[in-house]
Amino acid sequence: MSAPLDASKLVIHKTTTPKEKLPNDKLVFGKTFTDHMLEIEWTAQAGWGTPTISPYHKLSLDPSTVVLHYAFELFEGMKAYRDTDNNIRTFRGDKNMDRMNKSADRIALPTFDGEELMKLIDQFLLVDESFVPQGAGYSLYLRPTMIGTTESLGVGTPDKALLYVIASPVGPYYGTGFKPVSLEATDYAVRAWPGGVGNRKLGANYAPCVRPQLEAAKRGYQQNLWLFGEEGYITEVGTMNAFFVFKNADGTKELATAPLDGTILEGVTRDSILELTRERLPKNEWVVSERKFTIGEVEERAAKGELIEAFGAGTAAVVSPIKSIGWKGKEIEVPLAAGDSGELTAQVAEWIRKIQYGEEQYKNWSRVAQ
Amino acid sequence: MSAPLDASKLVIHKTTTPKEKLPNDKLVFGKTFTDHMLEIEWTAQAGWGTPTISPYHKLSLDPSTVVLHYAFELFEGMKAYRDTDNNIRTFRGDKNMDRMNKSADRIALPTFDGEELMKLIDQFLLVDESFVPQGAGYSLYLRPTMIGTTESLGVGTPDKALLYVIASPVGPYYGTGFKPVSLEATDYAVRAWPGGVGNRKLGANYAPCVRPQLEAAKRGYQQNLWLFGEEGYITEVGTMNAFFVFKNADGTKELATAPLDGTILEGVTRDSILELTRERLPKNEWVVSERKFTIGEVEERAAKGELIEAFGAGTAAVVSPIKSIGWKGKEIEVPLAAGDSGELTAQVAEWIRKIQYGEEQYKNWSRVAQ
Repeated sequence: MSAPLDASKLVIHKTTTPKEKLPNDKLVFGKTFTDHMLEIEWTAQAGWGTPTISPYHKLSLDPSTVVLHYAFELFEGMKAYRDTDNNIRTFRGDKNMDRMNKSADRIALPTFDGEELMKLIDQFLLVDESFVPQGAGYSLYLRPTMIGTTESLGVGTPDKALLYVIASPVGPYYGTGFKPVSLEATDYAVRAWPGGVGNRKLGANYAPCVRPQLEAAKRGYQQNLWLFGEEGYITEVGTMNAFFVFKNADGTKELATAPLDGTILEGVTRDSILELTRERLPKNEWVVSERKFTIGEVEERAAKGELIEAFGAGTAAVVSPIKSIGWKGKEIEVPLAAGDSGELTAQVAEWIRKIQYGEEQYKNWSRVAQ
Repeated sequence: MSAPLDASKLVIHKTTTPKEKLPNDKLVFGKTFTDHMLEIEWTAQAGWGTPTISPYHKLSLDPSTVVLHYAFELFEGMKAYRDTDNNIRTFRGDKNMDRMNKSADRIALPTFDGEELMKLIDQFLLVDESFVPQGAGYSLYLRPTMIGTTESLGVGTPDKALLYVIASPVGPYYGTGFKPVSLEATDYAVRAWPGGVGNRKLGANYAPCVRPQLEAAKRGYQQNLWLFGEEGYITEVGTMNAFFVFKNADGTKELATAPLDGTILEGVTRDSILELTRERLPKNEWVVSERKFTIGEVEERAAKGELIEAFGAGTAAVVSPIKSIGWKGKEIEVPLAAGDSGELTAQVAEWIRKIQYGEEQYKNWSRVAQ
């Protein structure tokens, strides 16, 4: 009998030594954490164990644990927001749960009922409620993580795992307003490939990406732009999905992002932007496309004045405006019609912010922890 | 001032509670470990710290540690052998040190002087000398590992790392003699890609490979064979390099393995087999090739009776004979002229065994711990 994940079994041990809270202006992304953490152990034999919220603590791992050798690890990034009624809200957590299960399945780690983990995250948020910062752009970053904990150097299916969630209070990605970034198009390294795992949120996709980012930084760029294939297809920006806005000769406009062909992370922000723009942009003026397009097309259309704006999209920054792309020794300049971003960039950021902070109800996208 | 790795600073704390040793027939690969472990901490600020051999112990890691989220992890596989004079020998450890540094560099972890780590491994082997089993095929498996230990969810260059070595007494991969394996050629998943990290011994390359191995196992195969591209180039076998032996129309023979094009792990056993066969096989009868070849060529030449043998090569098994390959619903049968393997397979296994166990001196390939 392998037990399913069951939120009703939750056990809570509260800390007796609460941490001091940092003021909003001292918050650094992912550096400080709340008083508690949520953990659920899994074994192949017994299934999911008792969910526990207990004081934030170190993990004790045997040096042979498979997570340290074979990258049996995956994670999610989510945020919790404080609304004007002091409710704590999460944004489309069901999408994160679906993706987390797909990630787990891809590397032979256990899957679980996503709604059960969402219920546990709600309880975790209520216990550490006081760490959710107040103020526009402030939130509590949630990091659901799963690691294989089998203690053996044999490469095989882990028979033990730990699912845990930690939380870090964070400020707006850019102090106030946007800070548009310069990108370097990377042509000597690839992030993902067909038949690989680039569409799953696995640890394995991250460490190999740091070196190209360092190389870009050395040459004065803030991020790198991932290309694929001889054609130079645009795939992602650093660790975000990439969106480009083009103007057509007939005056219509196109919002374009790479399709989910197995090499693209299935971003929740990406999906939200596609849905909101498809619903809200006037259909006689706009086309929203998931299609392949190349750095060559971007360069060519920029030269013709048809590149209007570009941005990265992800949980951390929501949207991150792009101001230029270095490519083969040339700079492709991206207009910033709204000052620090393009107009659509600013618009989608605001649409999403309102839903995240509960100022607007949109379908079931915002969930109140209770 | 960033300190280099310095073996002369070694500090040794010996255990007061030595473990009981298992009899040879109870040894399971990577399941039990020696009394001690070797550790060296690194920080960006101070460089490499004091190397320490201390009782085998759990690692205490903050749940935000980057190794658990972004796969900042790499390892090596080496073996130590007891020779007939009771010396403890390692095999071509300098190659492992070179590869470990290349792996570290690729994911922005610190590099080090490989000879210093080899000196430390020698001392570790002398401390745990009694765990090196006696007998042909028995050895002490060494697992040098490096993990990023920065406690932060920001994706960037780790500013802290831990290099550690643990050791597990192991028996022969196959009880006695060879056990030839059946492979399933995998065409729906891809292990590595040009511009990726398939040529580095990173944790990131391993977890994604387990699912295809499980799929192969479900259909009754022992391992999977990794192909690349529409052409179906043969790249690796499970977690080993792949060798094929073909007979030509003129009676000459060819030993072929995939070239180091960035998608192939730079195996130490692979390199040793290439060097020994190039030196020892009669040049008028044999060609040793590093070249691309496809599953189609293997199928075609098997049909013509020109496929003579095939094997995987790696530290764990040294060589692993292949008896058949499932491909598009058909079975490509591989002859086993020497009973459980091909003749060259048995020959190279014996050549390498003699050097590993110190029965034969060959260049500097075997190093006595002292």
